[in-house]
Amino acid sequence: MCGIFGIYSYEKENVTKKIYYGLFALQHRGQEGAGIAVSDGKGINFYKNIGLVTEVFKKDILQNLFGYIGIGHVRYSTTGIKSVENCQPFVVKSSLGQIAIAHNGDILNSEELRLELEKKGHIFTSTTDSEIIAQLLIREIIKTNDRIEAIKNVLNKLVGAYSLLILFEDCLIAVRDEHGFKPLCIGEDGENIYISSEDCALTTLDVSFLRDVKPGEIVVINNDGMESYTFKKKNKVSTCMFEYIYFARPDSTIDGISVYKVRKEVGRRLAKEHPVEADIISPIPDSGNAFAIGYSEESKIPYYEALIKNKYTGRTFILPSQNERELAVRLKLSPVRSLLENKRVVLVDDSIVRGTTSKRIVNMVKKVGAKEVHLRVGCPKIISPCYYGIDMATKEELIAHKKCIMEIAKIIGVESLGYISIEGLLKAIGRKDLCLACLTGEYPTDINFIKVQNR
Amino acid sequence: MCGIFGIYSYEKENVTKKIYYGLFALQHRGQEGAGIAVSDGKGINFYKNIGLVTEVFKKDILQNLFGYIGIGHVRYSTTGIKSVENCQPFVVKSSLGQIAIAHNGDILNSEELRLELEKKGHIFTSTTDSEIIAQLLIREIIKTNDRIEAIKNVLNKLVGAYSLLILFEDCLIAVRDEHGFKPLCIGEDGENIYISSEDCALTTLDVSFLRDVKPGEIVVINNDGMESYTFKKKNKVSTCMFEYIYFARPDSTIDGISVYKVRKEVGRRLAKEHPVEADIISPIPDSGNAFAIGYSEESKIPYYEALIKNKYTGRTFILPSQNERELAVRLKLSPVRSLLENKRVVLVDDSIVRGTTSKRIVNMVKKVGAKEVHLRVGCPKIISPCYYGIDMATKEELIAHKKCIMEIAKIIGVESLGYISIEGLLKAIGRKDLCLACLTGEYPTDINFIKVQNR
Amino acid sequence: MCGIFGIYSYEKENVTKKIYYGLFALQHRGQEGAGIAVSDGKGINFYKNIGLVTEVFKKDILQNLFGYIGIGHVRYSTTGIKSVENCQPFVVKSSLGQIAIAHNGDILNSEELRLELEKKGHIFTSTTDSEIIAQLLIREIIKTNDRIEAIKNVLNKLVGAYSLLILFEDCLIAVRDEHGFKPLCIGEDGENIYISSEDCALTTLDVSFLRDVKPGEIVVINNDGMESYTFKKKNKVSTCMFEYIYFARPDSTIDGISVYKVRKEVGRRLAKEHPVEADIISPIPDSGNAFAIGYSEESKIPYYEALIKNKYTGRTFILPSQNERELAVRLKLSPVRSLLENKRVVLVDDSIVRGTTSKRIVNMVKKVGAKEVHLRVGCPKIISPCYYGIDMATKEELIAHKKCIMEIAKIIGVESLGYISIEGLLKAIGRKDLCLACLTGEYPTDINFIKVQNR
Amino acid sequence: MCGIFGIYSYEKENVTKKIYYGLFALQHRGQEGAGIAVSDGKGINFYKNIGLVTEVFKKDILQNLFGYIGIGHVRYSTTGIKSVENCQPFVVKSSLGQIAIAHNGDILNSEELRLELEKKGHIFTSTTDSEIIAQLLIREIIKTNDRIEAIKNVLNKLVGAYSLLILFEDCLIAVRDEHGFKPLCIGEDGENIYISSEDCALTTLDVSFLRDVKPGEIVVINNDGMESYTFKKKNKVSTCMFEYIYFARPDSTIDGISVYKVRKEVGRRLAKEHPVEADIISPIPDSGNAFAIGYSEESKIPYYEALIKNKYTGRTFILPSQNERELAVRLKLSPVRSLLENKRVVLVDDSIVRGTTSKRIVNMVKKVGAKEVHLRVGCPKIISPCYYGIDMATKEELIAHKKCIMEIAKIIGVESLGYISIEGLLKAIGRKDLCLACLTGEYPTDINFIKVQNR
Repeated sequence: MCGIFGIYSYEKENVTKKIYYGLFALQHRGQEGAGIAVSDGKGINFYKNIGLVTEVFKKDILQNLFGYIGIGHVRYSTTGIKSVENCQPFVVKSSLGQIAIAHNGDILNSEELRLELEKKGHIFTSTTDSEIIAQLLIREIIKTNDRIEAIKNVLNKLVGAYSLLILFEDCLIAVRDEHGFKPLCIGEDGENIYISSEDCALTTLDVSFLRDVKPGEIVVINNDGMESYTFKKKNKVSTCMFEYIYFARPDSTIDGISVYKVRKEVGRRLAKEHPVEADIISPIPDSGNAFAIGYSEESKIPYYEALIKNKYTGRTFILPSQNERELAVRLKLSPVRSLLENKRVVLVDDSIVRGTTSKRIVNMVKKVGAKEVHLRVGCPKIISPCYYGIDMATKEELIAHKKCIMEIAKIIGVESLGYISIEGLLKAIGRKDLCLACLTGEYPTDINFIKVQNR
Repeated sequence: MCGIFGIYSYEKENVTKKIYYGLFALQHRGQEGAGIAVSDGKGINFYKNIGLVTEVFKKDILQNLFGYIGIGHVRYSTTGIKSVENCQPFVVKSSLGQIAIAHNGDILNSEELRLELEKKGHIFTSTTDSEIIAQLLIREIIKTNDRIEAIKNVLNKLVGAYSLLILFEDCLIAVRDEHGFKPLCIGEDGENIYISSEDCALTTLDVSFLRDVKPGEIVVINNDGMESYTFKKKNKVSTCMFEYIYFARPDSTIDGISVYKVRKEVGRRLAKEHPVEADIISPIPDSGNAFAIGYSEESKIPYYEALIKNKYTGRTFILPSQNERELAVRLKLSPVRSLLENKRVVLVDDSIVRGTTSKRIVNMVKKVGAKEVHLRVGCPKIISPCYYGIDMATKEELIAHKKCIMEIAKIIGVESLGYISIEGLLKAIGRKDLCLACLTGEYPTDINFIKVQNR
Repeated sequence: MCGIFGIYSYEKENVTKKIYYGLFALQHRGQEGAGIAVSDGKGINFYKNIGLVTEVFKKDILQNLFGYIGIGHVRYSTTGIKSVENCQPFVVKSSLGQIAIAHNGDILNSEELRLELEKKGHIFTSTTDSEIIAQLLIREIIKTNDRIEAIKNVLNKLVGAYSLLILFEDCLIAVRDEHGFKPLCIGEDGENIYISSEDCALTTLDVSFLRDVKPGEIVVINNDGMESYTFKKKNKVSTCMFEYIYFARPDSTIDGISVYKVRKEVGRRLAKEHPVEADIISPIPDSGNAFAIGYSEESKIPYYEALIKNKYTGRTFILPSQNERELAVRLKLSPVRSLLENKRVVLVDDSIVRGTTSKRIVNMVKKVGAKEVHLRVGCPKIISPCYYGIDMATKEELIAHKKCIMEIAKIIGVESLGYISIEGLLKAIGRKDLCLACLTGEYPTDINFIKVQNR
Repeated sequence: MCGIFGIYSYEKENVTKKIYYGLFALQHRGQEGAGIAVSDGKGINFYKNIGLVTEVFKKDILQNLFGYIGIGHVRYSTTGIKSVENCQPFVVKSSLGQIAIAHNGDILNSEELRLELEKKGHIFTSTTDSEIIAQLLIREIIKTNDRIEAIKNVLNKLVGAYSLLILFEDCLIAVRDEHGFKPLCIGEDGENIYISSEDCALTTLDVSFLRDVKPGEIVVINNDGMESYTFKKKNKVSTCMFEYIYFARPDSTIDGISVYKVRKEVGRRLAKEHPVEADIISPIPDSGNAFAIGYSEESKIPYYEALIKNKYTGRTFILPSQNERELAVRLKLSPVRSLLENKRVVLVDDSIVRGTTSKRIVNMVKKVGAKEVHLRVGCPKIISPCYYGIDMATKEELIAHKKCIMEIAKIIGVESLGYISIEGLLKAIGRKDLCLACLTGEYPTDINFIKVQNR
């Protein structure tokens, strides 16, 4: 996952700082790196680096970026070496001037496209999909001499998930793939048009939400205003359900549906699907909060925050000993003994991937005296990896891959375990055009490419 | 406020890293600076600097500190220049060997004591109370040739609030002032004795809580074990009520009373004292959470988190314009429109000091469509400054100083405003021996010194 | 100017640290940035950044680079923004695997080549010549399927000055342009082959000098040993005379001629061409030293170091006032009053470009009491800009551009001024196949491209 | 050794930046740390830290220091931990206001004085002599109620070497010990009075040299002007000869004698005392330069710089192997083969302490083909440690301690070795009131204290 944010200022005012605040509001979508590219109509300036938005963009750097059109990116942490080269936006110089590209998602056939380009003599300086898109796009524009035509042609070659921002020297273009895997929305405040991964960034900037970018839509913003094109007539929408469950900020609304409300409704349905007699309900903070509140509302079991999160993060230097992993959990989460001692406790979490952290938390809760621990989970069993940009785990690492509920409950150490059902999830979200690949193993796109990719 | 943490290892094992984790768990008590001093029985090594615990103590620094007795300190942010010189522990060399001191609190007569010492030719290299205590202590030990006697004599001179750790080369001493203003507790795990501002740090280290240090108690830990002395026979206890309401971590227990439970109980009583018809309750996170949960429990109005906190902090570079203050609030807190629109909302906060932030939050909540906003506050009206270590504000800055509820409600912009009553607070905490000076203007100690201090 | 350094280890030992030391010895050729790329036979790892070699390569970075073939680069300070993107080696991924390129020099027709490539749809991520060479090279290899043939074809397109290192995953290639503008030499120590801009880096590593790379030569080093190819049959050699006069380190030997000896011999000839009666000779350190020693030897006027250089450099924060420029000189150079007072002084410098620093130094020397100041210069009058990689100045900025000796002497404030003659220079160097373009305005290559380039 | 610099501005202008430039010019006297303290008449502000002057004082720090009287300090590298606490100026608060102290030198009886003060109940936060002086001074001023009287009393207690700056809130005081061990001089420019360890810092600031501070003199500068006091009527002057030979910058003049001229004259006398038939003379740069020039002048053997120093220093990460020490030398110094091959070479160095570096340099020179190497040394045999602030070595580490010339020559690997005689040295300097303790073992002060100190 990543976050993208763009602005076009009709008043030709400098948009750098607004992009900076927008990225700050999207920081939850990626903490590895950040970048901003802005055009003053004549050329593109940019800066990007490893780190959080506030670490990468210090005052002097922000003050040296000027432009009235711009895009920004926050990069999701992935395995492997963190390098500036792989940060975005990706900026290139070509016969068409400078172009900057930022995207959120994963192109499944990127290796095939790259090899094809390499065979034609193209070279690459990064391993980002953005560079491949840039190369394809410029070739196509030169060939067709028509930007929109060229973009359509390129997009038709891409297999995968992507929300995309393209910055030309005089124009901002936003694209959402035909499946609408990733969110992307439009805001405006009279003077500027905004494009953002989530509308929470619009709220931060006190900007009105206009509408979501539609799956398969190309939005072009330039001096003449905003125009919309469709690049795939037929497209089956399959928006990522995990955006609602875990990834998006709870104050965001995706395709008209409030993330917070989804989570609370999942909690209510969990209470119906997996009721239990207990004394208190506590979320595993922060991602489990809304689910737990919903569960409490339905079950009438009182909701407390029996696990306190340490607000001060940052890399702690962990003692290399057998207890280090447990310590790592306790440095982040702390149980409130007075709420847990001698109690039957329902813990509510958003999802279980590997199950290792859940196990340590349950153990910690029992250590301070919980009589029973019942775990309720807001996401159905995750049994297949995501190939669309969420670095979950390999199939073998997924605890639910080949294990039944009873086995998982035993490993984690809980008295009972309940996942929301897929039907419950769909009803809670209130839409059916979702990607459920990680829950069902049925992928909405061709995935024959992925052996190349899957490390 | 500050946080202090100490360890004595009977097995003579290096305690540096455990102090580091302890300070990390106490980080909420002070974010300006951090320091650790450890003794190997022959001399004291130390390191301190400006910054968060994880910023100050990098791997190489931790690896260069060895000792089996040690103390640590996190420093509360105060106005004025941040300087290493004012960080703690304060370490001195004397004819008695090296001594390190760390404290939490404020000595009211420090200027008087300093001037007295200066007249005798003593000089000072910092402006910390710790240095004054160190100077007095060493003079007294030389005079009396009896550590405990000397400590008692020095403590009898101090007017104010202090929880104190003194590290001698061979011994760790913990002191809590006779009023017990600040918390201080003892833990043990068979091999080590721990002293901590709050027991949440013991939980983090998986250490058993033994007991609180008593007001007016001196605890001496050395190779012979732990001994207890009383330095004031008569003492009126007046523990800071604000520790329960705001300062301490919710998972801590102070003098046998769970902080989380106090806050929830205050919330319940608030609902009784100031009921209202409303659609939802939301805390102002994170400090309002437990109060709001209690209010919801009692009132049956559903509890939601309608204000989302941005987890990624760090200094943002704010645009210098008229909207900057509002932006600053929106960068930290974001309203969930779908929960607030057209709703009658009860917001619950822990306390109101100046009222400026409350006003901005209420404004933001109304902007997304809340029909009514009712504010409920977990701390009675704050009308007088604190002279015991909490940097609240000057009398004039306190919104409740000379204003009635109606006036305050109007300024903040709410339909109704309700503070918990002092009686309600005392009942919720379940003890009466509390310092309520900021609520009543009646100070448990002589405060004739404070004109010198009060900027 | 820049410096390049490469190693091929037949024993397949890690060459990273040796490249690091080599670059450290070549640091005088470029202080803006540094980079190292190494291949382990399967892929290329690299790191580059803004800063001095010792700033860019900290222990942990060096320890993460492994490879038995490698190249390094130090980048010359140029005007404009310093960015990592423009540091070298430039590393690309292509259908032929990864390739890294580092070069010293300037390609005059780079814009033409770039535009041509852009027209074919190629895109660029930096403004370095290396990227253009990389793109051309890969196209050509794909076309010809013969590395050597391809390199020859590419080199035949380049107009300008370049010493070049190309790192393939399995092979190291060194190229010196057909004019031999820039130095490049080969060393060996039984286990490794070394390529270096100057042999001083070989001396630092205690490696034997083998021979210079010949103008128009391609040297290929791989598992089969070292092979040599010629890519231009006819070539007029024109090695940069400024390497001997200023740029190279005095302990280097270029094309068989000792730099130190050249400078001393120029000094002797200066004494014959421009004798003067004086009390002492002093160099303007460090670059004037060897010239001054030669002048003293011939003239018998005693040599002293009457200007002392501050060894501690680093950016000083200069007071913004009218005296700041003078202060800037005095912070770097300090006159020895006891040697200069009431003396007739010959100052010897390597060259005069703009003349502004010379003027300030002369002024400073007179201020401490020098009776007469005579300036002798080791380089003939510089009247034309260099287009081959030395950032001298624009024509208008060159003090000698349209001024006679008398005028220049008056501006600088000296009693007499003598430049070495071009004939004297040629005799002192002992070779005639030199580029004298900055002295004569006659350029050894086509320079019709330069209007594009010359800012 | 250390460097000190002070300014009093009669125009009450901010002196911070001038102190900064002064310290930059004195950087050669200490590279471990730097500090500046300034008074605006009401209080003292200061900043100090580990590092070079340009590293410690960045723009924002300089811009936050205001005052019209001020002192600065550069700290000499010593063994042991580098800590901010031991940097100077040392600033204290007392009943007399704030006082800052900076000194160059070593107080031999500091431990005795410290113990005495500790017995009286004083405590110490650093291990600097400055803190002891501060404590003594404040006691004495309180007792006598007369600053000058108090300073005299304190100085009479000190045994050792010290040049001292004392900053009161309204006054700057400079002191040079009665032996005049360390240099200290006065400058003025009409608006300010300057005190500096060496006059080279005055030259850098374009300030006129007024006079040296006399041994046993106290100079008081305040609003009424400058006054002079003598604190020891009888005093035997013994200025450190090593200041002339090695420590001071060659452009400085100490007690009326030019350092550069001394070194050149020592070189001439060396040529007479230890003549040799040779082809070239080369200094070991930079400290050997002036000596070698003098030797060349007298002997008529031509002077060349056959060893080139790498201008770019900074910590290089050395390969941990058997050759690392040799590499360390070659990274700093590089031989010019063309000057050395088949030559009989005279190398000239300022002094030999342990002899290990000399050995490696000689080895390196022979490796490039020198036929004979003759070493000439500008300082007589060093046989005893310095107790006055120069961290030479322990007696056992001094190569000349118990070895004759022949043995030393053999160890170092030279064909002949010649040290200047003590008589020659005295004549070259032209004064006899010098400290020659390291050459003779006869110390000008009582040294019974030193067992405590000598590690």
